[in-house]
Amino acid sequence: MILILTPNIQEESPEYQLLIRYLDSLKDIEYRIHHVQGSVQRLTEVYLIGNTAALSRDFMKSLPCVERALRVQEAYRILGRHGDDDLPFDFEYNGVAFSQDCLHLFAGLCAVDTPEHVERMMEALRDNGQSCTRMGAYKPRTNPYSFQGHGKQCLPYVFELAGKYDIKIIAMEITHEAHIDEIHEALEQTGNPTGVMLQIGTRNTQNFELLKSVGRQQTYPVLLKRGFGITLNESLNAAEYLASEGNRHVIFALRGMKTNLGDPHRNLVDFAHVPVLKRLTRMPVCIDPSHSVGGRHRSPDGLLDVMHATAQGIIAGANMILVDFHPAPSKALVDGPQALRLDELPLFLEDMQIAREAYLKRVALVKRYQPALLNRA
Amino acid sequence: MILILTPNIQEESPEYQLLIRYLDSLKDIEYRIHHVQGSVQRLTEVYLIGNTAALSRDFMKSLPCVERALRVQEAYRILGRHGDDDLPFDFEYNGVAFSQDCLHLFAGLCAVDTPEHVERMMEALRDNGQSCTRMGAYKPRTNPYSFQGHGKQCLPYVFELAGKYDIKIIAMEITHEAHIDEIHEALEQTGNPTGVMLQIGTRNTQNFELLKSVGRQQTYPVLLKRGFGITLNESLNAAEYLASEGNRHVIFALRGMKTNLGDPHRNLVDFAHVPVLKRLTRMPVCIDPSHSVGGRHRSPDGLLDVMHATAQGIIAGANMILVDFHPAPSKALVDGPQALRLDELPLFLEDMQIAREAYLKRVALVKRYQPALLNRA
Amino acid sequence: MILILTPNIQEESPEYQLLIRYLDSLKDIEYRIHHVQGSVQRLTEVYLIGNTAALSRDFMKSLPCVERALRVQEAYRILGRHGDDDLPFDFEYNGVAFSQDCLHLFAGLCAVDTPEHVERMMEALRDNGQSCTRMGAYKPRTNPYSFQGHGKQCLPYVFELAGKYDIKIIAMEITHEAHIDEIHEALEQTGNPTGVMLQIGTRNTQNFELLKSVGRQQTYPVLLKRGFGITLNESLNAAEYLASEGNRHVIFALRGMKTNLGDPHRNLVDFAHVPVLKRLTRMPVCIDPSHSVGGRHRSPDGLLDVMHATAQGIIAGANMILVDFHPAPSKALVDGPQALRLDELPLFLEDMQIAREAYLKRVALVKRYQPALLNRA
Amino acid sequence: MILILTPNIQEESPEYQLLIRYLDSLKDIEYRIHHVQGSVQRLTEVYLIGNTAALSRDFMKSLPCVERALRVQEAYRILGRHGDDDLPFDFEYNGVAFSQDCLHLFAGLCAVDTPEHVERMMEALRDNGQSCTRMGAYKPRTNPYSFQGHGKQCLPYVFELAGKYDIKIIAMEITHEAHIDEIHEALEQTGNPTGVMLQIGTRNTQNFELLKSVGRQQTYPVLLKRGFGITLNESLNAAEYLASEGNRHVIFALRGMKTNLGDPHRNLVDFAHVPVLKRLTRMPVCIDPSHSVGGRHRSPDGLLDVMHATAQGIIAGANMILVDFHPAPSKALVDGPQALRLDELPLFLEDMQIAREAYLKRVALVKRYQPALLNRA
Repeated sequence: MILILTPNIQEESPEYQLLIRYLDSLKDIEYRIHHVQGSVQRLTEVYLIGNTAALSRDFMKSLPCVERALRVQEAYRILGRHGDDDLPFDFEYNGVAFSQDCLHLFAGLCAVDTPEHVERMMEALRDNGQSCTRMGAYKPRTNPYSFQGHGKQCLPYVFELAGKYDIKIIAMEITHEAHIDEIHEALEQTGNPTGVMLQIGTRNTQNFELLKSVGRQQTYPVLLKRGFGITLNESLNAAEYLASEGNRHVIFALRGMKTNLGDPHRNLVDFAHVPVLKRLTRMPVCIDPSHSVGGRHRSPDGLLDVMHATAQGIIAGANMILVDFHPAPSKALVDGPQALRLDELPLFLEDMQIAREAYLKRVALVKRYQPALLNRA
Repeated sequence: MILILTPNIQEESPEYQLLIRYLDSLKDIEYRIHHVQGSVQRLTEVYLIGNTAALSRDFMKSLPCVERALRVQEAYRILGRHGDDDLPFDFEYNGVAFSQDCLHLFAGLCAVDTPEHVERMMEALRDNGQSCTRMGAYKPRTNPYSFQGHGKQCLPYVFELAGKYDIKIIAMEITHEAHIDEIHEALEQTGNPTGVMLQIGTRNTQNFELLKSVGRQQTYPVLLKRGFGITLNESLNAAEYLASEGNRHVIFALRGMKTNLGDPHRNLVDFAHVPVLKRLTRMPVCIDPSHSVGGRHRSPDGLLDVMHATAQGIIAGANMILVDFHPAPSKALVDGPQALRLDELPLFLEDMQIAREAYLKRVALVKRYQPALLNRA
Repeated sequence: MILILTPNIQEESPEYQLLIRYLDSLKDIEYRIHHVQGSVQRLTEVYLIGNTAALSRDFMKSLPCVERALRVQEAYRILGRHGDDDLPFDFEYNGVAFSQDCLHLFAGLCAVDTPEHVERMMEALRDNGQSCTRMGAYKPRTNPYSFQGHGKQCLPYVFELAGKYDIKIIAMEITHEAHIDEIHEALEQTGNPTGVMLQIGTRNTQNFELLKSVGRQQTYPVLLKRGFGITLNESLNAAEYLASEGNRHVIFALRGMKTNLGDPHRNLVDFAHVPVLKRLTRMPVCIDPSHSVGGRHRSPDGLLDVMHATAQGIIAGANMILVDFHPAPSKALVDGPQALRLDELPLFLEDMQIAREAYLKRVALVKRYQPALLNRA
Repeated sequence: MILILTPNIQEESPEYQLLIRYLDSLKDIEYRIHHVQGSVQRLTEVYLIGNTAALSRDFMKSLPCVERALRVQEAYRILGRHGDDDLPFDFEYNGVAFSQDCLHLFAGLCAVDTPEHVERMMEALRDNGQSCTRMGAYKPRTNPYSFQGHGKQCLPYVFELAGKYDIKIIAMEITHEAHIDEIHEALEQTGNPTGVMLQIGTRNTQNFELLKSVGRQQTYPVLLKRGFGITLNESLNAAEYLASEGNRHVIFALRGMKTNLGDPHRNLVDFAHVPVLKRLTRMPVCIDPSHSVGGRHRSPDGLLDVMHATAQGIIAGANMILVDFHPAPSKALVDGPQALRLDELPLFLEDMQIAREAYLKRVALVKRYQPALLNRA
């Protein structure tokens, strides 16, 4: 069993002393204390080892300065759902609120190429009432001889343009811990005109050292993409690395599984896992239809596959959409063929709205039915 | 290039003679004539071999008694879409119409167990305005020592009860060609109180001999499930076996891909392929959320994963839903844990309706936007 | 618990009567008797249900006419290994002995095309001391418009040529139960000049109706290929279908798993499962390097990948090699690019011999070490 | 087309000047010069863009200071094989020679736990004539709460014990660039008693930033493990990252592919790719049977599956074996169940020897046959 104590609890405090005295009195139970020092708070966990089956979890929770009591077989200790757990998990960053109930669009450039394209993208977002975007400066590429992104050189103009068009958050992939500092410096240097959500890509889902570095800072929220060749459980354990280092502002992104069973799509779209993630964890769930589908194929009903995948994610409760747009897809340096055009943004937004309304109606519907079903069950 | 001639064309007819004379005149082109005799019509195809690149497809289509002209690299010769192709593909069976625009629910028992359960199921369907169902009599099981279904013994009472409750079509899996006759005889014997859609399961998707047998009859439409370890292209070629033997009344069912990347679901739900199927072929598209998801897990929003998967299929345009219900899931002999209860049927139907309305709105939306987008493109 | 009785036991026999009286006397245990009638023997199994944990398996085995006593959790009831089980499983067919200790080469044509090619192939085999081959008459093809094999038309000359060149067994894929009769008739008609091993291909591994038909006859041994998109456990359950119907002369073939992780090979070669199969079951293990590797790529050391895969299978104990050869690969109608040439046969045989000798040395080595290791363990 | 120039070529040299004048004279061809500065040499590459199809590769190779001329479609520019390419690729490190012809065993501890275990392991290696080992100090673990290795604390005693028992090279996984310095410092501090091969694990195969850091140093050779959910092509591109940064002393390790098709093994053993790697690249090829197989299952012939997999790799030409041993597997902190015991080392070595001799015989055999086969082909 693990006891998670009130954050920043002092070892000299009477409550803490009382707790320790109680633990010392337990027979057949040893305990070990573990501190996690984040930048803003210190987390204290107490591991109980031995005959813990005999302990009542409810009683342990009622002890002084104990915030939560978890049985160790419970996976995803911090990010997971644990039965009666009702600790709040929502967070706000730069004026934008995130939770398992929200819906935000992060449309933008897969890779920053020119200031003109960045500006046209941000202007279109502002004109369509959007305040978040995606912008890739650091691009991990399969082939070492491919374009690897403009890196820190492009950050100042990207951030300034974001400020100019009132963009509040930019989701930006990083591939090295040094990029956190580079982003931080560029934001400082440009007067913090916008915010950044640090994105970990699918090739780095199990790059545990990078996860630890990102988890140790609490300035920026983190968007973690699911690893494309590992199980969902392994990806969720990777997310837990972030939390175990102190950063709980984590959003988990589905982006398709790498298997030729997904052909002719680039990946096998995995958005049926949206409700699974909301059941297993408390993280907001993002979907990336662009990298899942990987093309601009259009169904005979006139809708692009990317739009169908987006609607599928939203009608099952997705909280964030990460999607590639480009002012001139044919000139994009990375993944141009899958990008949507700026003139498709209003259609995309209206389409999202239809799916979102359907989701909300479905939730209201089941709320209406549930009492009767529970009575009969 | 292949020329598909007007059905039932007579070789003595002047149009046919004219066509042959023209083909004889072509230099560097040989031809071979192939007849497909179905129970209601004879299909004639002419294969042109040699320097066909020089031929204009438009011109060939304009020749007498030529209905379609296809270049051989075009896959899924009969079931596929081939550019400007606008031949009708809709069909009606026992008063129920099928096309890429319809939506039908086939809720029912994965495996028939007792007459009482069959009756309660059908009564619930009738009471909820449904006229289709699924009923499994022949069950392919991984383990030879597991229950293999009641087989032909149960057919008479299943069909009679269907008639009693005004069920028009029963989707029923068969695993051997002899089952077609058994079904036929039981229908005759009970006075044809209902209709049957022959279902080919995922383990038999590439059982080409069974496909040929089913394809050679045209009495019953066919529901072909996608093979769970093969590519989409291979499964579509399997569907083409049915059509090449003469039966074009084929519905294609997605049922999830077998890979542990889908955990904790039983399979990795593949409903993002709904629009892909409608683009590549002219078949109506079915989804099977029960076997894809394989459980009764519920998201914190109160909706079952099975319902989320269903909504995802419908909002992308699915035409048929195959789903397991059972009056007493704990007593089901096969796949009880994934079955919905009868008292959940009204909720399920209302939930489907919300997703369907969203789909129709989305199609209307894109129709409204398309002229403007095309002008700018 | 299941009791497997002496084959062909008569219900009137005193031993049987004694057994039944004993079973009737057991408290809290019910039993159900199940007969499996094969063409040459009748198998009787007694299922004990209830509190069987209290029964001693050794005692139950000592009862009259009880051949084996198995606890139900034991998978692969007939083909599997069950601890102390030492029933013989070897068999001989047409003068060729099969077991988990043998090694036989079945080189031949993937698909029969012309009598000349069949004759040249068989002559080469005879000249190199071989008495087994593979010959494909019925070819399951992904695309319905591809060549599907010459079928029963080619059987007479294939069998006659086999007799002429003293070939004892032809491994031949069948895709429909009617093919058993066609093969039987063609053998009768040509005076039984050779024997046939019925092969079930990877697309039909879970075609349970075909398995049952093949399992119900005991004239021909069966070669079952592993299903390419299912788990090993599922494929072994499929093999058990054959045995449960009465035919225990089953050889299990590895042929590579279908996944693009195997690129640039056609499939991901799975021959590390050779020892797994010998541990889990008592079946002889075949490998098919041609369909696993699917090409004639050559390593810088001069050896073809197909030869490397073959050596890998043999050094781990494979008992049978199924490999495509062709007198003129460029003219082959199916899978020509992966076929070896006749002039490569002597090299292939010598290469096999080196790997086989290494395997035998390894087994002798471990026998020498085992007593010392066991003492220390 | 890319021209790779003689290493360390000076731009003022007459040969370089001559080359540039020639390139300037080419019509419709632009060029761009790229320098790769490693710690010991500077590599200069010239990219030719435009109508390069018209250029003769042989002629371009004959130009002054041009070492190689490659067409850009050629993958794995530095590590790959490119037709007539005969540049030497062998290397020696700390007295041990590596090439596609060698065979070395790296047996050792998956994770360092105690000095006693390290010493017992190294003593056993020395006593059995071995001079290489594996020792894990930095362990990437799926779960953040699992033991993560003793890290730099254990390095001094590991290195000193290596020196004591005359171990020349330790393969050691690193997960962060800082570990290179930590290893370097510990080696310096202990007087460089041994050498280290830096190992990149399967979770970091596409951690391009780590690859770049490791590739930028040339002190230590690198062992790159194949990524477990990506294609072979993608993993080879990852290896190319190392080379493109200047370090060509790269060994590529197969370690099994993550898919439940490999059950009951931990992964699907992929050693049929040994010859593929030797054909596509010039890297020595390592196999890791312990992580591929993941257990101590034993076949009825008495040989462990791990030994069968090892023999399969060696008989196809593997150059290095990475395998887990442990003096007390039940006390191992990581992957104990798959470790071999020290008393199994002599058996393991003799078994390897049998497989190696078989491989060498096979190569000699094909050399003997090849002239005849080529004449007839």
